[in-house]
Amino acid sequence: MRDNTFTIDQIARALGARVEGDGGLRIASAAEPAMAGADQLALAMDAKYADGLAEGQAQAAILWDGADWQALGLKAAIFVPRPRYAMSGLTSLMDPGPFIKEGISGTSDIHPSAEIGEQTRIGPMVVIGPNVKIGKNARIASHVSIAEGSTIGDNALILQGARIGARVQIGDDFIAQPGAVIGSDGFSFVTPEKSAVENVRESLGDQGDAAQQSWTRIHSLGSVTIGNNVEIGANSAIDRGTIRDTSIGDGTKLDNLVHIGHNVQIGQDCLICGQVGIAGSSRIGNRVVMAGQCGVNDNIFVGDDVVAGGATKIFTNAPAGRVLLGYPAVKMDTHIEIQKALRRLPRFMKSLQRDK
Amino acid sequence: MRDNTFTIDQIARALGARVEGDGGLRIASAAEPAMAGADQLALAMDAKYADGLAEGQAQAAILWDGADWQALGLKAAIFVPRPRYAMSGLTSLMDPGPFIKEGISGTSDIHPSAEIGEQTRIGPMVVIGPNVKIGKNARIASHVSIAEGSTIGDNALILQGARIGARVQIGDDFIAQPGAVIGSDGFSFVTPEKSAVENVRESLGDQGDAAQQSWTRIHSLGSVTIGNNVEIGANSAIDRGTIRDTSIGDGTKLDNLVHIGHNVQIGQDCLICGQVGIAGSSRIGNRVVMAGQCGVNDNIFVGDDVVAGGATKIFTNAPAGRVLLGYPAVKMDTHIEIQKALRRLPRFMKSLQRDK
Amino acid sequence: MRDNTFTIDQIARALGARVEGDGGLRIASAAEPAMAGADQLALAMDAKYADGLAEGQAQAAILWDGADWQALGLKAAIFVPRPRYAMSGLTSLMDPGPFIKEGISGTSDIHPSAEIGEQTRIGPMVVIGPNVKIGKNARIASHVSIAEGSTIGDNALILQGARIGARVQIGDDFIAQPGAVIGSDGFSFVTPEKSAVENVRESLGDQGDAAQQSWTRIHSLGSVTIGNNVEIGANSAIDRGTIRDTSIGDGTKLDNLVHIGHNVQIGQDCLICGQVGIAGSSRIGNRVVMAGQCGVNDNIFVGDDVVAGGATKIFTNAPAGRVLLGYPAVKMDTHIEIQKALRRLPRFMKSLQRDK
Repeated sequence: MRDNTFTIDQIARALGARVEGDGGLRIASAAEPAMAGADQLALAMDAKYADGLAEGQAQAAILWDGADWQALGLKAAIFVPRPRYAMSGLTSLMDPGPFIKEGISGTSDIHPSAEIGEQTRIGPMVVIGPNVKIGKNARIASHVSIAEGSTIGDNALILQGARIGARVQIGDDFIAQPGAVIGSDGFSFVTPEKSAVENVRESLGDQGDAAQQSWTRIHSLGSVTIGNNVEIGANSAIDRGTIRDTSIGDGTKLDNLVHIGHNVQIGQDCLICGQVGIAGSSRIGNRVVMAGQCGVNDNIFVGDDVVAGGATKIFTNAPAGRVLLGYPAVKMDTHIEIQKALRRLPRFMKSLQRDK
Repeated sequence: MRDNTFTIDQIARALGARVEGDGGLRIASAAEPAMAGADQLALAMDAKYADGLAEGQAQAAILWDGADWQALGLKAAIFVPRPRYAMSGLTSLMDPGPFIKEGISGTSDIHPSAEIGEQTRIGPMVVIGPNVKIGKNARIASHVSIAEGSTIGDNALILQGARIGARVQIGDDFIAQPGAVIGSDGFSFVTPEKSAVENVRESLGDQGDAAQQSWTRIHSLGSVTIGNNVEIGANSAIDRGTIRDTSIGDGTKLDNLVHIGHNVQIGQDCLICGQVGIAGSSRIGNRVVMAGQCGVNDNIFVGDDVVAGGATKIFTNAPAGRVLLGYPAVKMDTHIEIQKALRRLPRFMKSLQRDK
Repeated sequence: MRDNTFTIDQIARALGARVEGDGGLRIASAAEPAMAGADQLALAMDAKYADGLAEGQAQAAILWDGADWQALGLKAAIFVPRPRYAMSGLTSLMDPGPFIKEGISGTSDIHPSAEIGEQTRIGPMVVIGPNVKIGKNARIASHVSIAEGSTIGDNALILQGARIGARVQIGDDFIAQPGAVIGSDGFSFVTPEKSAVENVRESLGDQGDAAQQSWTRIHSLGSVTIGNNVEIGANSAIDRGTIRDTSIGDGTKLDNLVHIGHNVQIGQDCLICGQVGIAGSSRIGNRVVMAGQCGVNDNIFVGDDVVAGGATKIFTNAPAGRVLLGYPAVKMDTHIEIQKALRRLPRFMKSLQRDK
């Protein structure tokens, strides 16, 4: 078992940060100031935590700029230039990672044609299909399935019960949370004759005289291509493309319960938060941020650096750099202006009717 | 095999209800009045079901107050003071529960350090990690995984493919529906320098001059703590906390496809319906009810006894007892007033322009 | 291994389409015109693809009506009357389907009382309970569970980790995408005395003086009944009914992450897109189309042929044939009119105040 304690100097080195006091002090884990025990590092990056430090037992802390660590009763302090960023280094250092035994579990079912890289760990009851290629240092937890012909780069972390579909291509440093599905079939159906939905779309509201008919499936011949450094959240689902692949660019992160339709293309370094849905064939630029429960219509384009607030529903193309909010999405300041007007509207209408 | 029939007296005793007629009559199951067979108990708690009783074959029924069971052609009747509440006793009595064989399936993989309570049943292909503790009388269905260091109280029912993450703490009488994920990693990313999103939040709409940069992961060192008597719905996902645990209080129930972000704290006896999403670090009081598809912004507070209607999007703190509706959420009566005004708005604007 | 190439004549026959040029030309797969290799069939059903054809290497294409295939430099062309419909035949022909070995995997756990039809393939680590009946030609991928007493018709395709609950009844030609849950317990809870939610519903906003009380579970004695030719998307969840079954009619298709509450009845030939939620006991007619993220209130009725645009929230009964949009849902043209008025509202209110 590895030693799970760290010296203050070790932590500071990992963060590129400055130490004052006893750099040799050992700590076991991190805690909020008021709840910290004597062997824990208090995270007190803001002066508002001074009282918390007094309540807790911490002997060492990460402190806000200019804090007087001795007056706070500490034996050691770490000072970081950008506290929020320091959290990434600190938590990465202290994360023990999931328990997955070295080697390949005897209860897993790995097709003989699969190529598995060095140092890759495969947990119990994993199923890996023909012609799969997995890079080195991967960690694959229990109950995962990786279907025929898919390729995964180095250092992947694939958690319990995630599903990688056939012919999916994934880069290095991939993370899949439990239950993520990558490569479900696209939702694409067609009627022998024109359907009511096609009429509604053309006319903006009129069903026309579409016949009563059943849906025939358009199969997904494409797959999913994912870049390097991508993370997919728990129970999210990414559909295969119809002819070409659905694609997600380098550095993009998807939260839990996100739905990505067939043929969607997402650029690099996007943040797609919980329960966002992106309908078929839409294209999302680079560095786009969508807060929870946003929706994107099918066949539209969302430009680079768009930021969409919670539950924004984007029905039409959004130019690069736009900050959006609302259903339907409008510029955030327009949305705020409309909402202010709406709050006053009932009284306003009454007063005007009185005036008449 | 257990006898799956019940006498009218047995049922009435379980419900604390009054019987008239033949209490020894045996029934096999419950049914809606019009569809009930001769061996079924008709559920006719309202006078509107009288016609249904005539259509069906039931010889016994739960009836509305004051019903004349003999005139309805029944041999026995049960009268209950609060029909909806009686449904809980009745369905609990008649639910055969899932089929899980006694003992521990030979196809499961249980770490030798795990402690499993008496009478606990573990189905096929379950994986249980090191140092897990599970109480007595638990029923764990196939394909479940329970990761290292987690603790689960007595009488748990954990259904197919549910995922319990590392170091999760759960009380007694826990229910997880199929595919529920408890303890996925939090969605928390940071850029080396200030990001466009941070600028937008500070300025309410201006991206500022944020550099193009990639996201670095903040790992989740916390886990999830769940009280007694909690139920989590199918394919829901609950993220671990960053430093402290995400927490869910006693008696709280989550429906399907619910997303709970990292660090969220939910109080006791809440009802969180299907597809609700609660973003990171928000706190929800006791007895809060959120209808389907509600959303809660990150880092806000929703007070005790708040009731939010379908698809309400809560962006700011909500005081205790408030009844909310809308996007963005407003008091329900304000919402109704605004919607009435909106329906009249187009005509109203036209008429004013004509007047000018 | 089967030959994965097709002659142009073969393809045209499958589509009921007309060939010009060399019908014996063999192609390996389909591609977008600009990306097509020499052995690929270019999909160029619209004149806008002419430039793409010139860029790519295709020697054969499906072309738009009236196209001059020789002038486009092709050796063969297929002409189809309704291009979108042709995609269903083409992709069905070319889909290799998932890799599942013939027979029943030795790592699966099939109860001896289960009846499995001829030619049915069962992949690794599948669990099938007592008294299950599965028709012929089914393909069941890894990690699937099918619980006691359920019945599935012929030709089912059940993908990785899908969960079929106890006593679920499913027709022929069923498809379940990975992680789909059919037969989770309904979300139905009741308090011993009247709850705040019941008061709010009766009064439209007033919580009344409801006591602080905990929720008691109403168990689901019903199951789920599904017709022929139904598809359920990845990580969707369909709850069992309380007394009778939740039901889904012939030909209806559900996309990913859809939530169907207990007792819901959905008609035939509906399309329910990603992340739609339908609350308990609502009834949906035939040929209803709901775009992504729609929500349907509990206990309401949505008539035949209703079409609801993206994220429409339906709170009240919707008559047959209605085209809906908005939160709350209104007729699509009303919604568009209101949105236009809203955009002008802030300036309009200012101008009127100046006039006063």
